[in-house]
Formats: sequence, structure tokens, C-alpha cells
Amino acid sequence: MLIVQKFGGSSVADAARIKRVAGILAETRRAGHRVVAVLSAQGDTTDELIEKARELCPEPGGRELDALLCVGEQISVALMALTLESMGLAAVSLTGWQIGLSTDDRHGAARIRCIDTARLNRELEAGKIVLVCGFQGIDDAGDLTTLGRGGSDTSAVAIAAALHADRCQIYTDVEGVYTADPRRVPEARKLEAVGYDEMMELASLGSQVLHNRSVELARRCGVELEVCSSFVRAPGTLVTEPMERTALSGVAKDADIARVTVRGVPDRPGAVLELFQLLSRADVNVDLILQSGSPDGTGDLSFTLRSADAAKVQAILEEHRAALGLRSFALDPDAAKVSLVGAGLMDAPGMAVQMFRALAEAGINIRMIASSEIKLSVVVPRAEADKAVRAVHQRFFANES
Amino acid sequence: MLIVQKFGGSSVADAARIKRVAGILAETRRAGHRVVAVLSAQGDTTDELIEKARELCPEPGGRELDALLCVGEQISVALMALTLESMGLAAVSLTGWQIGLSTDDRHGAARIRCIDTARLNRELEAGKIVLVCGFQGIDDAGDLTTLGRGGSDTSAVAIAAALHADRCQIYTDVEGVYTADPRRVPEARKLEAVGYDEMMELASLGSQVLHNRSVELARRCGVELEVCSSFVRAPGTLVTEPMERTALSGVAKDADIARVTVRGVPDRPGAVLELFQLLSRADVNVDLILQSGSPDGTGDLSFTLRSADAAKVQAILEEHRAALGLRSFALDPDAAKVSLVGAGLMDAPGMAVQMFRALAEAGINIRMIASSEIKLSVVVPRAEADKAVRAVHQRFFANES
Repeated sequence: MLIVQKFGGSSVADAARIKRVAGILAETRRAGHRVVAVLSAQGDTTDELIEKARELCPEPGGRELDALLCVGEQISVALMALTLESMGLAAVSLTGWQIGLSTDDRHGAARIRCIDTARLNRELEAGKIVLVCGFQGIDDAGDLTTLGRGGSDTSAVAIAAALHADRCQIYTDVEGVYTADPRRVPEARKLEAVGYDEMMELASLGSQVLHNRSVELARRCGVELEVCSSFVRAPGTLVTEPMERTALSGVAKDADIARVTVRGVPDRPGAVLELFQLLSRADVNVDLILQSGSPDGTGDLSFTLRSADAAKVQAILEEHRAALGLRSFALDPDAAKVSLVGAGLMDAPGMAVQMFRALAEAGINIRMIASSEIKLSVVVPRAEADKAVRAVHQRFFANES
Repeated sequence: MLIVQKFGGSSVADAARIKRVAGILAETRRAGHRVVAVLSAQGDTTDELIEKARELCPEPGGRELDALLCVGEQISVALMALTLESMGLAAVSLTGWQIGLSTDDRHGAARIRCIDTARLNRELEAGKIVLVCGFQGIDDAGDLTTLGRGGSDTSAVAIAAALHADRCQIYTDVEGVYTADPRRVPEARKLEAVGYDEMMELASLGSQVLHNRSVELARRCGVELEVCSSFVRAPGTLVTEPMERTALSGVAKDADIARVTVRGVPDRPGAVLELFQLLSRADVNVDLILQSGSPDGTGDLSFTLRSADAAKVQAILEEHRAALGLRSFALDPDAAKVSLVGAGLMDAPGMAVQMFRALAEAGINIRMIASSEIKLSVVVPRAEADKAVRAVHQRFFANES
């Protein structure tokens, strides 16, 4: 098999951890597989480089920050190659530009265009363990670029797709994808497999195992992902497109949101548009939006946002309330979103009733409800978020564990 | 003018020094010149990277050590570009491979083949201060290489030659080339100019301002060098081919040598050859060699070497003395070489007499004498080396200062 294995910054943070990862790579190679490893920068290297830049430039960015940050992964792959060589294994380190990972020129958030697999295939055919810098590429001008958030996961998936790898394993500090956060919900169960869509909902809802960008790319390219642990040798979770979807995947929590309720939104075209235009110009990302009409010709509007943006939104609403013709507004900065994720939600409307009952029995007041095909979310007070996750998890997953 | 300016590791060691160098670059640019700056890795970065590698691999080297070490200069040039940008100056950082600095594949000691000036010229024409990683290149396989000792100076000279630059300035922590080490000889005088040959003799004899490799390249390509200080704004020393050579350039000291005297070398062809073959196989570099015949059919032989190799040579001589047919040998591990350098030595044999008289008057015992066209060297006890330098300097340079 040809296997792409991706290791994040904490997995290569120091000499001991590099040796542990080298052991995983050696084991895979000795089992007869061809191996490409995609590595991130060690531990805090990226932050340290940014700190160095800040001493010299108030707002480092663009081409030169990318040129600086690219050294992080270069250090990781060269150290790993030296480690494998000292273990008697043939290895070679390659940068983003050396594997021809071509991107657009959006420095700091570049998008991958294509990968020239000639060098990768040559090294694999020579029997080498190939160590590739994640997170980085090269643009048409020959300048270094970085891929931004989730970049190394995305590199790994793109390389797996370009090489038609049999599997792409994402090594993390958790053992896989769980039905709920195992640190908060002791009875949470590791999933053997999860669909791409459900994985994306779980990721965007705060389970933080895989970045959505890489999952989306994996789905589009048909790359089978496996989330597994750098520290515990055990089967992880497969992220794939199942023939038949499992009913329910898990309960996710996003404890970092604020909720705004606006009363008396004028019932004319554009009133809501104007409000959201103001928020968009201020770089505020709005998540859930609910609107209801009212007999007196005005309506009520609720929406959620990142709690970090709460103060900014408060100021915008105060400044523009009169001009927008809003009667009043209230902002709750301490909300959380709890979501039940699973393809089974499509076919079983009864599940919503069960979820609300579980929350009611736990004494939790629901502030907002939103649903999509594979997700049912409720907004609750932040202080009750963990209790809500446990109640919902207990209701839907207790029998299976 | 097009000026190449090279700054070593101590000149860019921290944020304050990077800002100082940025000031020099800005000043040169604002004076209307086009500027290419060649930078080394910051301070101890290279040693720190080697230390990291040693934690994982007992003897790091080859392709992967080069891949690791190349990040050092990459950090320097990116930080400098960010600094210049924050000062409102257009700048661009370029790696060795981005300027197409092509080398052979001798990792750790690569030789430059050629430089593709297209990118350099494009950035210069755009008015940018161009910041280039010294010490590094790329081989035909697309792998990173490093140039080894004196690499950044050599990069700067090669770039100056490829671009037909008007001048190549080497910034160091001294103000120029002196008639003797100014830390030891207070009356030492800064030279306005020195010939390439004399500079190479001064460098190889321990004045350590410029690596010989870069001076040799500068001579071959006709690049005019200027040695100047990163810390003091003053004219430095020009290294060039003068129309008429100055008589004497300076007094150099190499305090780090050992001297071997062998008695009773058999007077047959090959006896000396065998000895030096043994030393060569053990990687011992021999410097001065003197041999004298003797009426009994044997001869005496003296030679000097780096004092770091003394123990190794002692062991070789003990093991092979009988087989080589040598009567006896003595090793003095604490010797020093003091040399008078200047083209004038060619035409004035009387200078040797003056030098020996100066040393005799200072009560210094000469152990060995060797001379070339532009150099007259004596080996003296290490403890008397500084006194010898002062005595010779006083005799030949006192009148001029």
C-alpha cells in the first residue's frame, strides 16, 4: 500500500517525539508499505518565528512572512530524515517547492492548484521514506506560500490525492473521532467510521480534530482519511463516504458563541440586509439566523456569532439602531451551541422531539433551535453546555456503548 | 552604482543589529544605488541547528544536514525584508535556489557553478533592495546545498561577479584590513587598499577577515572587494589588483600551529613521501616543510601543522618511526607562525635581514624560516608570538603611522 501519514506540530515537538514518529514510519515501511510523511513545524516554532518578526515589523505578513514561516516545516522534515537515516532507513526530505506543490499567490492563505508528482514518485520508487513539509507551496512567481489554517492536513490530503494513495492517516493527540468530547463525557465512544459530511459538521461545531478544509478536499478527491493517535497505537476513525450512512455520529459543542436578539425589525425589504452588511464590513461572521414575523408589521430576529466579536456587535447595534429602525436589542455574550450530528436526522423527525425532551428533563432552557439535513443545533446558556451535551449523548448513544 | 553588501552572522544576530544593518541598506538605497545584500544565518543559529540534529543522529551530514542548515539564512533575509518594508522601503528576500545559484552536489562543501541572474535583475529593476541567502545553493537534482567555510563571502562575490556589480562590500566586526591585529598591536594601521595575493596571505596567516576562497574568486572574476565595519561608518579597506603594488601589507600571526622535527630521514627516494602519505590519509594538513641533507646519507626534516592535529601526528610517528627508518623525532605543540606580507619582498632581499634583526633584538629565537614571493614567515614559540609581531611591525610600519 501507499500510505500518506501526517503528523502535527505537537507530534514532532522535541527529540523524543520525533523518535516516536520515526518509529511509526519505520514500522509502516518495514511492513512493506510505501510511505510519505507530511510534517508540521515543531511545537511553538511558528509562534516563535512570528514573535521574531514582530520585534522588527508591527504587522508582519504577505510574501516575507510566508518565506519566514516556511523554515518551520523544513526543520521538521530534515531532522526526521536524519533520524531515520541514523536508524538505517533510506529517507529524503522535500519542501513544498521541491514536490512542486503549486498554489495561487494569496500569501498566508494560499489555495493548492496542483502537485507535480515526478519527484515524489522517483523517491518512492527508490524505496525511500519521503518526508514532506506540510503547510507550504510555491506560486507562479517562484515565491514561497503558506496555506493558512489547517494547512498541513490539507497538504497531506492533496498529496494523497495526487499520488492516488491507498490511505491518508492524520496523526493527532486524540485517538480518533468520538461521539462527544471524551474529556467532558466519559462514556463517549470512539467511532469506527464517520462520513465526510458528518465529520465536517463535527469539526465546524468544535470537535477540532480535523480542519474542514482538508475534509472537504478529501471528499472531493475521494481520499479515505484515518484519524489516529501519535501516542497510542490503536485503530483510529475512518473518514470516508459510507455506502449506507450511520444514523447518528456524535454530539458536538461550541462553547464560544454570543447570541443577539433584535425586536421590532421593520417589515420592509432590505432592513435585515442593511444590518448584516454592517456586520460583514466589520468582519463579523454570523452563524445561525432566525427571523419571525409579527402582526404589527415588524419582526423579531435572532442570530449567533463568535463571542470574541460580541463587543464589536454591541457597538454597531448601538450606533445604528435608530437608523435601521430597530425597536430594541439584547446581546447574550455567554451562549453555547450543542449539536446532534448524523445522517439519520433526515429521516427521523422524532429525533428532535427526543433531543428537546432530554434537555427539558435536564432542566436546560433552549434559547434557539436550528437544523440542517444532518444536524440539529440548540443554543443554551454556556454554563449549561456540558450538562446539555451529556444529556443528549445519554439519550442517543448510551445504549450502544 | 550596483553594490553587493554582505553581512555576517554577528551583524544580524538580534533585532537591534538587524535594524542597524537595515539602516545601512536604506542609506545606500536612498543614495540612489541599487543594492543586493547577502546575509548569513543569525549569530549561533547554525550551531543550534547542528545541536538539534545531533540529538537525533550521531553524525549529521550530507543532503539532510544541508536542508536543515539552509533555514538559517532564510530566517535572516525574511526578517530583514520585513524590517525594510516596515521602514517603507521595497524589499524582497530570495533563497539560494530562487536566485538559481547552481552548485555541484558536494553537500557541506559545494562549489558554485553559475547564477541565473534573471530574477535578481527583475527585482533590482523594480527598485527593490534584494536580500539573498548566503552560504547556500541548489544542485542539478534540485536539492539544497551549502558552500561550507567562507560560504557567505563566496556567495556575495559570485553574485557581484554575475551581476557585474560595481563593488562588493564585506561588512564585518572590524573596520578593515590592518597592518597587524589591532587588538594586539595598538599602533597597527588600517590599509586603504591591499592586493588580492597579499590579502590571501594575510587571511591564510590568521588575520581572519576574509576567507581565501572568496578572495580567490574575487581576483579571478575581477570583483573589487571592500572590507568595512557593520558598527562604525568609515571607509574600509579595498581589496583589488593595484596597478603598482605597495611594498608591504602587514604582519600576520597564526598562533595555532605545532612543529615537528624528524632526525635521520633515510636518503632514499620515497622516504619522505611515505611519511606524508600517512599524514594525508589521517587528514592532517601540513603547512611549511623544510628538509636538509646531511653528510652521513640521512637528512633532517621539519614541518608544521595545526596544533589540533598534534596528538594524532605524535601517534602516527610513534607507530611508524621504525618502519619509516627515522632515527628520532620531536614535536613542539606550542609554536606560532609570524609572517611579513607584501609584494615588496620580491624585490628587496634585505628585508629578510631586517626582519631577523628585529626578532633577534627582541630576544626571540627563530625555529624555522620559510618564504614565498610575497611572504616571509618565521616559526617562533607561541608565548613569544605577540612580541614577535610587535617587533616586526615596529621595524617595518612604525614610520608610516
